[in-house]
Amino acid sequence: MDYFIDQLVIENTTKIIFLVIDGIGGLPMNGRGGTELQVARTPNLDQLAADSICGLLDPILPGVTPGSGPAHFALFGYDPIESNIGRGVLEAAGINLPMTDRDVAIRINFATSDKNGNISDRRAGRIGTETNKRICQKIRENISLTPDAEFIIETVKEHRAALLIRGDNLGGDLTDTDPQQLGVPPLEPKALNKESEVTAKLTKKFLEQAHKVLANEEKANTVLLRGFARHRPYKSMMQRFKLKCLAIANYPMYRGVAFLLNMDLNPVLSDIKSQFEAVKHNYDKYDFFFVHVKATDARGEDGNFDEKVKVIEEVDSLIPILTELNPDVFIVTADHSTPATMKSHSWHPVPVLLKSGICRPDPVIRFDEISCIQGGLGRQPSMNLMPIVLANAQRLTKFGA
Amino acid sequence: MDYFIDQLVIENTTKIIFLVIDGIGGLPMNGRGGTELQVARTPNLDQLAADSICGLLDPILPGVTPGSGPAHFALFGYDPIESNIGRGVLEAAGINLPMTDRDVAIRINFATSDKNGNISDRRAGRIGTETNKRICQKIRENISLTPDAEFIIETVKEHRAALLIRGDNLGGDLTDTDPQQLGVPPLEPKALNKESEVTAKLTKKFLEQAHKVLANEEKANTVLLRGFARHRPYKSMMQRFKLKCLAIANYPMYRGVAFLLNMDLNPVLSDIKSQFEAVKHNYDKYDFFFVHVKATDARGEDGNFDEKVKVIEEVDSLIPILTELNPDVFIVTADHSTPATMKSHSWHPVPVLLKSGICRPDPVIRFDEISCIQGGLGRQPSMNLMPIVLANAQRLTKFGA
Repeated sequence: MDYFIDQLVIENTTKIIFLVIDGIGGLPMNGRGGTELQVARTPNLDQLAADSICGLLDPILPGVTPGSGPAHFALFGYDPIESNIGRGVLEAAGINLPMTDRDVAIRINFATSDKNGNISDRRAGRIGTETNKRICQKIRENISLTPDAEFIIETVKEHRAALLIRGDNLGGDLTDTDPQQLGVPPLEPKALNKESEVTAKLTKKFLEQAHKVLANEEKANTVLLRGFARHRPYKSMMQRFKLKCLAIANYPMYRGVAFLLNMDLNPVLSDIKSQFEAVKHNYDKYDFFFVHVKATDARGEDGNFDEKVKVIEEVDSLIPILTELNPDVFIVTADHSTPATMKSHSWHPVPVLLKSGICRPDPVIRFDEISCIQGGLGRQPSMNLMPIVLANAQRLTKFGA
Repeated sequence: MDYFIDQLVIENTTKIIFLVIDGIGGLPMNGRGGTELQVARTPNLDQLAADSICGLLDPILPGVTPGSGPAHFALFGYDPIESNIGRGVLEAAGINLPMTDRDVAIRINFATSDKNGNISDRRAGRIGTETNKRICQKIRENISLTPDAEFIIETVKEHRAALLIRGDNLGGDLTDTDPQQLGVPPLEPKALNKESEVTAKLTKKFLEQAHKVLANEEKANTVLLRGFARHRPYKSMMQRFKLKCLAIANYPMYRGVAFLLNMDLNPVLSDIKSQFEAVKHNYDKYDFFFVHVKATDARGEDGNFDEKVKVIEEVDSLIPILTELNPDVFIVTADHSTPATMKSHSWHPVPVLLKSGICRPDPVIRFDEISCIQGGLGRQPSMNLMPIVLANAQRLTKFGA
């Protein structure tokens, strides 16, 4: 896909810190006096809001609750509907398995089947990751497809692995073989269109051999396949925006999206403070720092309002580590809302603040969902944010004469 | 047309009340101290606004004044430009005449022509509806088209009727035969493209026979045709949103739109109170209640500011009939503005409030055009409303992983 904005991109030496506080948007809870963000004491974020232009972002479209994948693509300026990726690609990206445009990616669950071939455990008793690695190696050594097609298998963890089938013109639209229940055999993979018929044949060939190779395994004697998806490589952030990017994210999903956009990946870190300090340590080497904080979303999913407030306050207390670097553009926002009252992602728009020397600050002086309604950015699709970021970094040239 | 949102729809048992107060948006009038909504005493709507998320809706696009047809399609989540329907289809829909995708729909005006064939009365002296019915029956009995094509004629009222020409691959782009002036003969129907040429031939065949059949009528001795339009069936609200809908609307236009979307139609009622009570009486049988109040628009068209204020106050006083039902989602909005100062529809955006248990209320505490500028919904195309309604009814699943 070609984006209008890309033709305007120019290079310079400005620095951009892009802080995504996952699921930070919330809803008021009875008796607490507001949303998680309203209740939290956030002097640093509020000071930033006062110096920033603020607003609200709709991750996908008004009313649409996003998964984390499309929500992040939107934040990075990629059409979240066009760029939506299948589970198989996400699984492979999460372990940073390099993919090509000749690949169909698939999730594997190792499973247990009984002597009649019926599934008795869809997760093979959650075998350890070391067993998984041994089995993947066995498969690599003993299975081959055709002269024209090969496969790549890689351990994810426990009973999960990623599989690529690589060949020319392979369609990626096939049904899962996981029957999603016990006491029945795995399903046949079925092509959903003509382009996927060769993929179905190759998959069957893989499965037949795999079941022979695994026949003597105690637990992992069969494989279930899910989430077939053709990989369509993305233009990288470097290609589109001329930005050398570092992703400081700890979870496979977010590392996966960053990997697909060809960002460099910082090693996994144990706490938010270390993540923020990683920006400092790498400050000279990159233009764009994607920092992903997961705990807000996790506490929202738990339904734990008070703990989500605490995480927000912790993030707030660490903000000076980032602001002291004095980046040219500093953005704080989220991929989506995760209200503790709903214990799930939601469609509600997320607050955003953007600080730069040329951002035209508005009257908003609090960083929360309600205050940001009055912000100068108004209410926008998340996908509009990246052009505004680039503009504030003076990385977009004039359009037209 | 396929809509992205439809793939996300799930079913549940939530109830949605969708109150359209036609033309409620207005403009300040000198000496009155504000717009119709600002001047009206509306304690119930204001309390709702305080508990709701509010905003402003642009019916079609900023600056575009809509007819009632496209404005309602937009409110129901249908692209108002793509879904725009010809007058002929609207006329037939208004009397709930079933149409197929093989139909071209046309409005008929019975008219009077003099002995030279020139029009002397474009409305045939506004013949009574009973005369109209007799004439339509005479036409049915005495006219036939070809073995491959038939026609359906149905009385609307007074001098108006609806005509369908039904056949294979009939284009619907033809010029009117109504010359819009007296003392000249009717015009020939002209095909505006190749696909409509067969329709033109069939129409001429119909007209020749009609003029013979009607030759001895005292007043209605000729017919004028207007608003040729090919009917393209819509996906119903049930097909798109899995909503069982009841329309409580009294005027043909709104009943027609509801009919085209396959809502059930409540019998016509004599006052607003009865309309609101009809929601209560049918509450168990439907998911979605479209309640249409016409009088606000009518008083706006009259240019009667004070009477429009009174209607608004009447609606406000009846709101408890609806709120006592405690619907999961309650929406109050309009199809368009009809400022009394302009005596016509206008392009000004309309206020909207949406109340649900998970709507994230904003600081707006008055339901009027000016207060709603500060609302959390911001300013949106009307077409965005329905996805937000469905989200608040928890009838949309997550997009992407």
